[in-house]
Amino acid sequence: MSLRGKLPLLALLLALVFVLASVALGAAEWNDGSPEKRLRECQQRGDRHEQREEREDCQRRCLEDYRREKEERGGRAEEITPHHKGREEEEKEHKEQQQGKPYVFEDQHFTTKHRTEHGRVRVLQKFTERSEILRGIENYRVAILEADPQTFIVPNHRDAETIIFIANGRGSVSIMASHDKRESFNLRLGDVMRIPAGTTVYLINRSNNEKLVIVKLLQPVSTPGHFETFFGPGGEDPESYYKAFSTELLEAALNTRKDKIQKIFGQQRRGVIIKASEEQIRAMSQHKEGGVWPFGGESKGPVNLFSKRPEQANQYGQLYEVDPSECRELKELDLGVGFANITKGSMMGPFYNSRATKIAIVTNGQGYFEMACPHLSSSEFSGGKGSQHGGGGLPRHKGKTGPSYQKVRAQLKQGVVYVVPAGHPIITVASNDQNLEIVCFDINAKNNKKFFLAGKTNIMNQLEREAKELGFGVPAREVDEVFKSQNEDLFFKGPHQHHHESRADA
Amino acid sequence: MSLRGKLPLLALLLALVFVLASVALGAAEWNDGSPEKRLRECQQRGDRHEQREEREDCQRRCLEDYRREKEERGGRAEEITPHHKGREEEEKEHKEQQQGKPYVFEDQHFTTKHRTEHGRVRVLQKFTERSEILRGIENYRVAILEADPQTFIVPNHRDAETIIFIANGRGSVSIMASHDKRESFNLRLGDVMRIPAGTTVYLINRSNNEKLVIVKLLQPVSTPGHFETFFGPGGEDPESYYKAFSTELLEAALNTRKDKIQKIFGQQRRGVIIKASEEQIRAMSQHKEGGVWPFGGESKGPVNLFSKRPEQANQYGQLYEVDPSECRELKELDLGVGFANITKGSMMGPFYNSRATKIAIVTNGQGYFEMACPHLSSSEFSGGKGSQHGGGGLPRHKGKTGPSYQKVRAQLKQGVVYVVPAGHPIITVASNDQNLEIVCFDINAKNNKKFFLAGKTNIMNQLEREAKELGFGVPAREVDEVFKSQNEDLFFKGPHQHHHESRADA
Amino acid sequence: MSLRGKLPLLALLLALVFVLASVALGAAEWNDGSPEKRLRECQQRGDRHEQREEREDCQRRCLEDYRREKEERGGRAEEITPHHKGREEEEKEHKEQQQGKPYVFEDQHFTTKHRTEHGRVRVLQKFTERSEILRGIENYRVAILEADPQTFIVPNHRDAETIIFIANGRGSVSIMASHDKRESFNLRLGDVMRIPAGTTVYLINRSNNEKLVIVKLLQPVSTPGHFETFFGPGGEDPESYYKAFSTELLEAALNTRKDKIQKIFGQQRRGVIIKASEEQIRAMSQHKEGGVWPFGGESKGPVNLFSKRPEQANQYGQLYEVDPSECRELKELDLGVGFANITKGSMMGPFYNSRATKIAIVTNGQGYFEMACPHLSSSEFSGGKGSQHGGGGLPRHKGKTGPSYQKVRAQLKQGVVYVVPAGHPIITVASNDQNLEIVCFDINAKNNKKFFLAGKTNIMNQLEREAKELGFGVPAREVDEVFKSQNEDLFFKGPHQHHHESRADA
Repeated sequence: MSLRGKLPLLALLLALVFVLASVALGAAEWNDGSPEKRLRECQQRGDRHEQREEREDCQRRCLEDYRREKEERGGRAEEITPHHKGREEEEKEHKEQQQGKPYVFEDQHFTTKHRTEHGRVRVLQKFTERSEILRGIENYRVAILEADPQTFIVPNHRDAETIIFIANGRGSVSIMASHDKRESFNLRLGDVMRIPAGTTVYLINRSNNEKLVIVKLLQPVSTPGHFETFFGPGGEDPESYYKAFSTELLEAALNTRKDKIQKIFGQQRRGVIIKASEEQIRAMSQHKEGGVWPFGGESKGPVNLFSKRPEQANQYGQLYEVDPSECRELKELDLGVGFANITKGSMMGPFYNSRATKIAIVTNGQGYFEMACPHLSSSEFSGGKGSQHGGGGLPRHKGKTGPSYQKVRAQLKQGVVYVVPAGHPIITVASNDQNLEIVCFDINAKNNKKFFLAGKTNIMNQLEREAKELGFGVPAREVDEVFKSQNEDLFFKGPHQHHHESRADA
Repeated sequence: MSLRGKLPLLALLLALVFVLASVALGAAEWNDGSPEKRLRECQQRGDRHEQREEREDCQRRCLEDYRREKEERGGRAEEITPHHKGREEEEKEHKEQQQGKPYVFEDQHFTTKHRTEHGRVRVLQKFTERSEILRGIENYRVAILEADPQTFIVPNHRDAETIIFIANGRGSVSIMASHDKRESFNLRLGDVMRIPAGTTVYLINRSNNEKLVIVKLLQPVSTPGHFETFFGPGGEDPESYYKAFSTELLEAALNTRKDKIQKIFGQQRRGVIIKASEEQIRAMSQHKEGGVWPFGGESKGPVNLFSKRPEQANQYGQLYEVDPSECRELKELDLGVGFANITKGSMMGPFYNSRATKIAIVTNGQGYFEMACPHLSSSEFSGGKGSQHGGGGLPRHKGKTGPSYQKVRAQLKQGVVYVVPAGHPIITVASNDQNLEIVCFDINAKNNKKFFLAGKTNIMNQLEREAKELGFGVPAREVDEVFKSQNEDLFFKGPHQHHHESRADA
Repeated sequence: MSLRGKLPLLALLLALVFVLASVALGAAEWNDGSPEKRLRECQQRGDRHEQREEREDCQRRCLEDYRREKEERGGRAEEITPHHKGREEEEKEHKEQQQGKPYVFEDQHFTTKHRTEHGRVRVLQKFTERSEILRGIENYRVAILEADPQTFIVPNHRDAETIIFIANGRGSVSIMASHDKRESFNLRLGDVMRIPAGTTVYLINRSNNEKLVIVKLLQPVSTPGHFETFFGPGGEDPESYYKAFSTELLEAALNTRKDKIQKIFGQQRRGVIIKASEEQIRAMSQHKEGGVWPFGGESKGPVNLFSKRPEQANQYGQLYEVDPSECRELKELDLGVGFANITKGSMMGPFYNSRATKIAIVTNGQGYFEMACPHLSSSEFSGGKGSQHGGGGLPRHKGKTGPSYQKVRAQLKQGVVYVVPAGHPIITVASNDQNLEIVCFDINAKNNKKFFLAGKTNIMNQLEREAKELGFGVPAREVDEVFKSQNEDLFFKGPHQHHHESRADA
């Protein structure tokens, strides 16, 4: 959805805004130590002079500082778990979640697939187990890996395509690209990488103090919606798939004596995620870093989202995105990946995606979203017998000639997963105390466009004068007054900065 | 299925036929005022000298005159509704429809999605609600829009790809192609256009006396088989999706005061299809016309089916078609669009499509069709327990070694929708009192071929002599006598012109 | 999966092996008359000097001689039916088949769709009728045609794409490629050909002593998982689809008198597969042979698998494969076709496919396979309530942190069909008394890679030293001892040659 491509004018304006902003605020910002501010500062610098590398490193440093500070402030940047809740809070959350249904998934919707003392892999339930309305993304699964510092994830392959996003920490990945070729890459915050289906791969957390957090989107290739992990190296735990074969066959295939075979497949009992020694980590960390986005081309290994200029950026937030047209690996899967950083107290939207259905995972911060959904109000999914009417359905409100829209609203916090179907208008709001960071996987990303419903370039401003009058039933002037008062795009000052109260927790 | 491409010889012959025919009948025809004749005349003229524009306009004029005349004769060209029926007729129709099951859909299978005093939008039920046998087209929906003269359809977007065909009248469409770009086009009889999923669009009927009738094929992008319409401009009716958001969020996003927002979203109560003033219509009608088919390329806005030379044409009918290879927009959806005009008293077929499943909608006239279907006779769909045999199934008739074919037969009249699955031979017959006009959407159109089972180039004539003898169990000479007696292709003199009685209503 | 492309080094080594082998064994082999040996000899010759045609013919001759010999020895190369079984054997087989479930299909899972005294067509049940786990290949069907010498299969078309593989005998196919074009080709052992959906086609067995055996993979285009056969020529048996139309319509369309029509559609009563005369066969056999694989290009008619250098070949077996990148016709269907000839007493694998799910049909010989499957052990398909966890599922064994693998094991013999899902490691073993020949259709073949789990280039050898230690929990040296003792690739000396006893029937 390269807006740059489509909106050279907008790009120019944005650039201008950055320059002015940075000139105007420059000095002040250097004194302000908050990482959010610094991240924006990096942004602006990157746009002032084209030193991408510098901007990248700067951005990464900032985000990492930000995490560290938050931890010192008692934050939980490294751990994706709910904090302890009071009774009322739980009730409120339950209520919210009910409202969010069926688009919002929380801790209880995950299953722990692998767990050792050093980490865990959790898999989200199938979307269609939640609601038929999600059938369009039935064949996609979400998983989250968390591994302690200096750990090793045992080599394995999956019967699924996998896109990984590094949400925290520093890792390293090794891929058996073919019979006689291994490729290894270091991974860092913001890296996106495709692990082709069936490719044997292993990971390490090469940091000695940070947790490695990887968010995964999986697309099974064998049985729709279902995947499994196959461990070759292993023994008792993880069990090796070699052990499924008769010893006589392994002897013949490996041309080795039974006892030797039984020995190497008998030792491993430490599980899927195990501790590695300093030396082992060091030896497996000597790999090249991932590259920048290979425009239109092929990506070797990981590419870093922050190596691109953001699609949208202002003091209220930044959106980094990559779409299929930019990378063959994503094109083959018709997927896009995005990262939104909403400044604390600010909001993103309203907007909608024309084709893509978004699967969003909150990686940091808190807030909430509101989304308009006509399907839930329609007879077919509200359980009414009208379901026989398919996309049709009778006018729902007496005398109404069109659909009505249910408000889907839910609290957001680290680890919450939510789905934004194509065409559905949404607003996301960050809490007042920290930035809200969200990674998004876009299904059906090809030719997807983002349409803004507010802000300088909202589509209502494109209507003909007569269309405004006829559509709203008021003079065009009054319509313009409402839709031409906002000078920013996509990211705006949040409601809490209008009314002097916090609504994020209200 | 560009026959021209494959059959230069045939094309030449056809051209020749036209020249001779027109020379022979020329004078007489100019005296004959019937629009069907005139349409053919246009056809021939177009083929005599290559003045496409002229031919186009001529054809369109003819079809429109034809409609007008029919109305004067008490026809109902503008309205797609059943006429009042007598009791016996209803019984007969019921019987027919039963025979047509599950491939034929009539009024009762539509749901009115939007209705105001000035028009309505009706949506056909999901095909799979009718029968599992239609699962192959589960994700396609059909809708028909009818709007009175000088009306406005409120701006909206859908979570579905939409292909529209202008079946009657003169409209105008405006599309918010992107944030900062609106494209507007005038629409006329025969125009085909794709409305990309999620694109906000509004329509007007710019005629001051004709109804605008648009036939739509929709392909949902979010939830397979289900789509919804999203109205931005609006208020009470249609409800605006902006109203699903908390006022505080709209205030922040639009940077405007609550009262102003509430005002513009509070007025509209007139519904989805509303009357517009002369001036408003005039102001919104100043748009360019759609173009001709962009061979292999990209289409900007609508393209007119009649701008192409017909695939097949003779005095018994004409077939206009466009396939994915001719237009990127259709290629992306793997769809084809066709329009058949069967001269009154004539017939089309027998033929079958090799890959494409046709969804056909009768836009004018009356008649009936007969189709051969082995699936309905097979155990799996006839409800027999044999369903466990999948495509297999035991020989159905004692001693038979192959399938048997059920005759699917149904009456056709304006507004009837029917499905012709790939590979199924079909014959369509026009009544004696008016032309039968049918618009077709082809699913899986890529590489589809039409195979003729009668006529000059029918495939039986391609069999080797021995194959004819072995296949039919009679001397090849007798086979040739049957299959080489027809000199036309696809469109033939109908049965009623053989037997001097009308079977269309029998 | 062109290993050559990816592994030039390996290719060189293989070539070298052939040269040495052939030089070393040369003389001896010419004295050894066994067809298996001769097939390998052809192989080697082909690799010594680039005379492909010669190698091809040689290989085909060898395979055919082999069949003939086996028959003389009392083999049943021509007939794909189970031999008479004793009670214990049946019980054993039942047990095996239970183990093989749901991946193995035997005689009782086929339905006879057409049968005459001269041949039959059998269709395998829908895969999803067996298990939901096979939903990924729901829309593919398998059929096997067997026709006596000098027979004719009546012209027909199907609403399915069809890929045919000639498993035995000499045939000839005629295709009505378009209205005015018939293409005819002779078919021979190893030929692969696509019959496009909806194309009318007829076949003959042009041999006067061999049965024609054709293995088919079908992909329905109309109703997922279901297809039907449409017979035009015919009468009572097979019934002609022309007979579904009213006589008056046929009269009009064919412009012929009723009596003539009734005559040609009234004679045929001999069924779908009928005897033809010497003269008729001769007349229909004068066609060109199919070509070699058109690298990357378009294939006209059949192409012969043996015209390619094998992907892998040594004294223990040969693997011939063609993938979508080599042929437009296969690319459109995203299919690959392979043929494995495992030398008697030898084995193939362990290995797994990265993306492709294989549908394998045994065309000759006996043996068994073992496959590791984590899905069957997982709660979702083992019927446990855990099914709600989708791909997730709790650790199955107390304390285990990963999946466990069920051993799928089944006997193989002529006519057995089995499915090997993507990512699943498998070993296939040939019995001691004859070669095991298997034809494979690969679904989702694009970008598929074969990963070897034993042999010279197995992926375990690609792991970093530390990964071996951490993965297996033993010194890297011990891992290498096990994985570096085998010098062959893919095909190995079987277990029965290790232990001096036959396990194939144990």
